[in-house]
Amino acid sequence: MQPKRLSVLGVGLLGGSLGLAAKARVSGCRVVGYAHRPETLDQALSLGAIDEGYDDPVRAVRDADLVVLCTPVGMLGDLLARVAPALAPDAVATDVGSTKASVVRVAEERCPTVRFVGSHPMAGSEKRGVAFARADLFDGAVCVTTPTARTEPVVLAGVEAFWRHLGMRVERLSPDEHDRLICDVSHLPHAVAAALVTAQQPGAERLAGRGFLDATRIAGGDGGLWRDILLDNRSNLTASIGRLRKSLDELESLLDQDRAEELREWLDRAADRRRAAQPGRNEGGGENGRNDPS
Amino acid sequence: MQPKRLSVLGVGLLGGSLGLAAKARVSGCRVVGYAHRPETLDQALSLGAIDEGYDDPVRAVRDADLVVLCTPVGMLGDLLARVAPALAPDAVATDVGSTKASVVRVAEERCPTVRFVGSHPMAGSEKRGVAFARADLFDGAVCVTTPTARTEPVVLAGVEAFWRHLGMRVERLSPDEHDRLICDVSHLPHAVAAALVTAQQPGAERLAGRGFLDATRIAGGDGGLWRDILLDNRSNLTASIGRLRKSLDELESLLDQDRAEELREWLDRAADRRRAAQPGRNEGGGENGRNDPS
Repeated sequence: MQPKRLSVLGVGLLGGSLGLAAKARVSGCRVVGYAHRPETLDQALSLGAIDEGYDDPVRAVRDADLVVLCTPVGMLGDLLARVAPALAPDAVATDVGSTKASVVRVAEERCPTVRFVGSHPMAGSEKRGVAFARADLFDGAVCVTTPTARTEPVVLAGVEAFWRHLGMRVERLSPDEHDRLICDVSHLPHAVAAALVTAQQPGAERLAGRGFLDATRIAGGDGGLWRDILLDNRSNLTASIGRLRKSLDELESLLDQDRAEELREWLDRAADRRRAAQPGRNEGGGENGRNDPS
Repeated sequence: MQPKRLSVLGVGLLGGSLGLAAKARVSGCRVVGYAHRPETLDQALSLGAIDEGYDDPVRAVRDADLVVLCTPVGMLGDLLARVAPALAPDAVATDVGSTKASVVRVAEERCPTVRFVGSHPMAGSEKRGVAFARADLFDGAVCVTTPTARTEPVVLAGVEAFWRHLGMRVERLSPDEHDRLICDVSHLPHAVAAALVTAQQPGAERLAGRGFLDATRIAGGDGGLWRDILLDNRSNLTASIGRLRKSLDELESLLDQDRAEELREWLDRAADRRRAAQPGRNEGGGENGRNDPS
């Protein structure tokens, strides 16, 4: 799918980057943006992230063939219900939310006539706002699509083709499977990074080097957006934290009992797994969770 | 202190970088290296990290005015005792070990006549070996010096001046204080990164983005060296893991009880602390722990 008219609802870091990327990669694509604040629209227009901007989402979706909701997860249901009557008959809708089970359930229950499939483009940064938008934000990163039994195959294929056209590698999972697995690589690391920062003794921060700064970089993300994500996915997060505690238990018993050889094997196994997780192309990608609706 | 003849015992990533940095920054400094393996010496010579190389540490320290031990923490006592009789009368010795209490105790007890002070230049990478040595590895990073009541002031001043000359910011702590604080910013993050990797469910790794990769990068470090560090500092590490568990307890109770506003405050406080920890110059620095004696 190569939209002629792309509607981006929420023009923050992700929405702005989406506009820039679509204009760079999809020939003849006109990008229409919605934001609550006029200053955000002005900024998005002047950066070239959108061609037209509206502070009314209903006007922003008119005649669009693809609508991408780039607002926080908690706002999606209301926003989609509001624009649904104004969508063109063939319009396809997707989103960029960091959790998918609740989003997809709300979309399907509240707006059964909308041709919707959930997406999670795993790109972003701890920065917020359209000022940090980049045309190459999605390039080489993973996008998860989350179809259900209700998803029309042509809608799924169209949305996946769109993300691939922006340079993304598409992985398809059920919404529940997405939330369970993404928790381990995104929500648990965020929770742990915040806990690591919180656990620091006074005076330690002046010894912080690159290792600490990299390990905790994600903890600098926006508290409000992460609160919504962690609460929305809390049952998976609780299970993931439980697995992390078990790993720490293992480590502590090896330390307590001075089992040097097993400790080395435990560290080597982790190092091997970490090195295997290092992708080639995906280095520039990132984990999501900071879509700023402004 | 600007040594005329610098002896580097252990020519790995740190030792090799030390040679390159000294030759670039200290005019007229001749760098003499010791390594166990002849291939390491050849490589260090061809990279210009050392001017002379020996597989006998006693020969490598002869006539040196500064000797820097760049071998793993566990080897330091034997190595220092071996070279002590061959040191020039005015020679000063230091090291680059990631833990300091045991190193300084061993140095002072086994070699009371050696003019020694402990150092921990917090620079490194998860890479190993002289092939990855860089002249700018230390630039802008922190170096902790760990004097005791036995340390001669002139030795401390000389060693600190040397690290500053390589572009480092020097912090002075007691060996115990160093081990307590460094645990929070280096050993705990390493343990947690390894536990995060270990706790991953099958299939999650293909969703890993930049956030996960940054948060776990340090877990890719050498298992043998980290085993020695974690075992050597295990009492502090156990206390640090305890504080991390308390932070996770807080987070879990906020999630369980759906206390959204307090959760947001908890995340915001962590984000503020993380942003405050971001130094300007120090960005290129890093945490230590991979000095490769080859």
